Amino acid sequence: MNFSSIFYIIGAVLRVEGVLMLLPVVVGLVYGEKETWSFLAVAAVAFLVGAALCFRRKKKSDFYSREGFVAVALSWIVISLFGCSPFVISGDIPDFVNAFFETVSGFTTTGSSILRDVEALSHASLFWRSFTHWIGGMGVLVFLLMLLPGNGGAGMFLMKAESPGPQVGKAVPKLRQNAVTLYMIYSAMTAIEVVILLLGRMPLFDALAVAFGTAGTGGFAVKNSGLASYSPFCQYVVTVFMILFGVNFNLYCFLFMRKFRQAAKIEEVRWYLGAILLSIGAIFINTLHIFDTAEQAFRSAAFHVGSIITTTGFSTYDYNVYPQFSKMILLGLMFLGACAGSTGGGLKVSRVVIMLKSAVGELARVVHPRIVRKVRLDGKVVEHDTMRSINTYLISFIFVFVFSLLIVSIDDFGMTTNFSAVSATINNIGPGFDIVGPAGNYAAFSNLSKLVFCFDMLAGRLEVIPMLVLMNPVTWSRAVILRRRRNK
Amino acid sequence: MNFSSIFYIIGAVLRVEGVLMLLPVVVGLVYGEKETWSFLAVAAVAFLVGAALCFRRKKKSDFYSREGFVAVALSWIVISLFGCSPFVISGDIPDFVNAFFETVSGFTTTGSSILRDVEALSHASLFWRSFTHWIGGMGVLVFLLMLLPGNGGAGMFLMKAESPGPQVGKAVPKLRQNAVTLYMIYSAMTAIEVVILLLGRMPLFDALAVAFGTAGTGGFAVKNSGLASYSPFCQYVVTVFMILFGVNFNLYCFLFMRKFRQAAKIEEVRWYLGAILLSIGAIFINTLHIFDTAEQAFRSAAFHVGSIITTTGFSTYDYNVYPQFSKMILLGLMFLGACAGSTGGGLKVSRVVIMLKSAVGELARVVHPRIVRKVRLDGKVVEHDTMRSINTYLISFIFVFVFSLLIVSIDDFGMTTNFSAVSATINNIGPGFDIVGPAGNYAAFSNLSKLVFCFDMLAGRLEVIPMLVLMNPVTWSRAVILRRRRNK
Repeated sequence: MNFSSIFYIIGAVLRVEGVLMLLPVVVGLVYGEKETWSFLAVAAVAFLVGAALCFRRKKKSDFYSREGFVAVALSWIVISLFGCSPFVISGDIPDFVNAFFETVSGFTTTGSSILRDVEALSHASLFWRSFTHWIGGMGVLVFLLMLLPGNGGAGMFLMKAESPGPQVGKAVPKLRQNAVTLYMIYSAMTAIEVVILLLGRMPLFDALAVAFGTAGTGGFAVKNSGLASYSPFCQYVVTVFMILFGVNFNLYCFLFMRKFRQAAKIEEVRWYLGAILLSIGAIFINTLHIFDTAEQAFRSAAFHVGSIITTTGFSTYDYNVYPQFSKMILLGLMFLGACAGSTGGGLKVSRVVIMLKSAVGELARVVHPRIVRKVRLDGKVVEHDTMRSINTYLISFIFVFVFSLLIVSIDDFGMTTNFSAVSATINNIGPGFDIVGPAGNYAAFSNLSKLVFCFDMLAGRLEVIPMLVLMNPVTWSRAVILRRRRNK
Repeated sequence: MNFSSIFYIIGAVLRVEGVLMLLPVVVGLVYGEKETWSFLAVAAVAFLVGAALCFRRKKKSDFYSREGFVAVALSWIVISLFGCSPFVISGDIPDFVNAFFETVSGFTTTGSSILRDVEALSHASLFWRSFTHWIGGMGVLVFLLMLLPGNGGAGMFLMKAESPGPQVGKAVPKLRQNAVTLYMIYSAMTAIEVVILLLGRMPLFDALAVAFGTAGTGGFAVKNSGLASYSPFCQYVVTVFMILFGVNFNLYCFLFMRKFRQAAKIEEVRWYLGAILLSIGAIFINTLHIFDTAEQAFRSAAFHVGSIITTTGFSTYDYNVYPQFSKMILLGLMFLGACAGSTGGGLKVSRVVIMLKSAVGELARVVHPRIVRKVRLDGKVVEHDTMRSINTYLISFIFVFVFSLLIVSIDDFGMTTNFSAVSATINNIGPGFDIVGPAGNYAAFSNLSKLVFCFDMLAGRLEVIPMLVLMNPVTWSRAVILRRRRNK
């Protein structure tokens, strides 16, 4: 294991976090809050620790996927540990496990909360909480790739470990250029949303927080009522932007570079939009009778379909009172998730489409053994290795899910609560049903369960494998390392 | 499509059913019940229709897996249609959909019931209901293989389509001999259970019904209280036999042929027994406080773990009042299921073990790309085709599950009810949780939902693929058939 490179990467990430934490300091100063100083202190410590970790970098170049996975998984844990410290120190979230849960939920763009009263927090804390969504959405390591020019061969492995989706698609050949393009589009879209929300008369602070939550597909709100108190116009704006941020960012890259033909080829986006339209239609018809006007029913259906399929988790209405059929559609969308290469979570549309196509192909093969049907996506044959990694991902996902459900059930809540809580965290949604529904929160769970949820949120955001690699004894076994050296 | 061969097979199966239906006629005569005549009438019609279907068999030999899957799926539907007729005609279950549900539940060894009052049924109907478990457990087509000597190359394809498990394991090389050995062991074990239950002073009628339910891992009881009213001795006997019938029957074949070394090699059985011991231990400790004595807690834990993992579904106690943790273990066991090549349902232990091993192997490969680890079971490398079919099975299973959940949720019951009802039918368990728990039944669902459950039960028993092949347009497409002919 190339520890020095891993430490170097974690150090670099920490320095970035230290700098980014100056933003809530500014917010705190504007509002004249005493909590400001805890952010400044932690920012300084993060920067110093980061600098110390980067200090001695040996010139070892053996950086492979193992190192990539470990570096990514550890980076996410470390930034969450530092990220939650201001909450604890300032006393906004005094309990450490709660603060850690809230921060992991922020960075992984889950949006699950243990807070009973969001509005009691300082502005600095609220800003940082929402800003973690924005950082985590596009990825911390992707951010790093943008900043560090000379990261050698490590970049590709980091990107592979952090980017969501079955294949790493790069619209721009050069890694650094790709990262810059992604963050440019990401920032521009966020800025546009803020401006439109301001036009809709949303206060600036709220507009920023909501836009960060939308862009990262996170879902933390700054009001106890979620987004219910904002105007219908703002709710529609957020709906549209949530759906836009769930689209594969390669589409925007292609549009940006005027490669319209390549943009039109992305099959995943069509499936994604199809699923959205179908779900909105079904839920609209199914819930028409519980609203006063058809507009309200449509607005709620569109908002929550957009919120759940993109795994944002904002809510304008307690969908616990929806009929079971609509709830089941939402539960299905939780697992489907958004497009690969977007900021959303879940299994990802392209992965589900590939699985479906492969099953249909195999069924045809059972019937007519001479038919040779390769699975195609965007007109290209899906490679065997991709199929294999999708299967590994699916099986690992199921086992993490089952194991989490088992541990969480020790707390003895109802099956709907447990099942939807694990679904909502591992798919990075936020709220689930029953106790953890839009009107509830995760505070009632034991510390053990909260840590399991933290693991699930990280596993969901990093697509399971990095977290399992981190915990796999084989990763750390000296015997294998030695055998590998001998083989050289 | 070779229709004449398929009709011939369905005809043969119907004739077998006609003959077997004479057993409830005998029972009805013994008890002097008027319902006897409906069984006799249907038996006669089944035999005649069967004979008519077998009348003209063309000498076409192109019988491939497509024909195998279609023949098996249609056979199961047809025997259920005939099998439910006596219930309707006699008025024991006057509603057709309910009678069909009950019969499918019987043949597929599920044991889910729509009956609110089991004891109101005639003895003939109760006997037939339990006897369908016994017929369905080892398989209708396997029974056929035993009877028809000259079934040519069709046998292997039929066996493949009907036998549970990822690979078709034959302990005896010749197909017919294999079927005879299986049914001999099956009958002998059932007979032994009946004798021991009689020694435990269970009435003969009950002992037969319970033994049929145990052997087929079905779960229909002849008392409204399930098996709660029988003595602890009888409950322990049933526990042991449930677990025995969940073992891979190849083990018994090997023991029977004194091939002890080969018997000891079957890895699946060790995982299966390990899962049972672990689950009993965990549930025992978790439920100790809700029972009066430790013996009661242990008996209930052992009984329900045995009942659920083998997908039998008998109950002695309403496990709805168990703590969530124990319920989650039971829910997990529902999906794990029994051994391949047993009469039990679920995903099957060997399939789950292979999936786990492949995921662990792939994780190691991610870390150390040079490691080549093949998945092994019983010391033999699992072939690529088997891995592929397991993946297809898993994906198909998930999609059938999700789709069923969606349709069933239209009835607007709670999530726990819906989720556990689909789980209990697709895994051929019987009871679920909440409304469909051990103290409840499936009567409240709409006809649409009941038909979905029928599909799920058949899909579960036949391991999804045959039912999907039956419904797949490609199976029936003339274009493909013509292209295939042209290629010859």
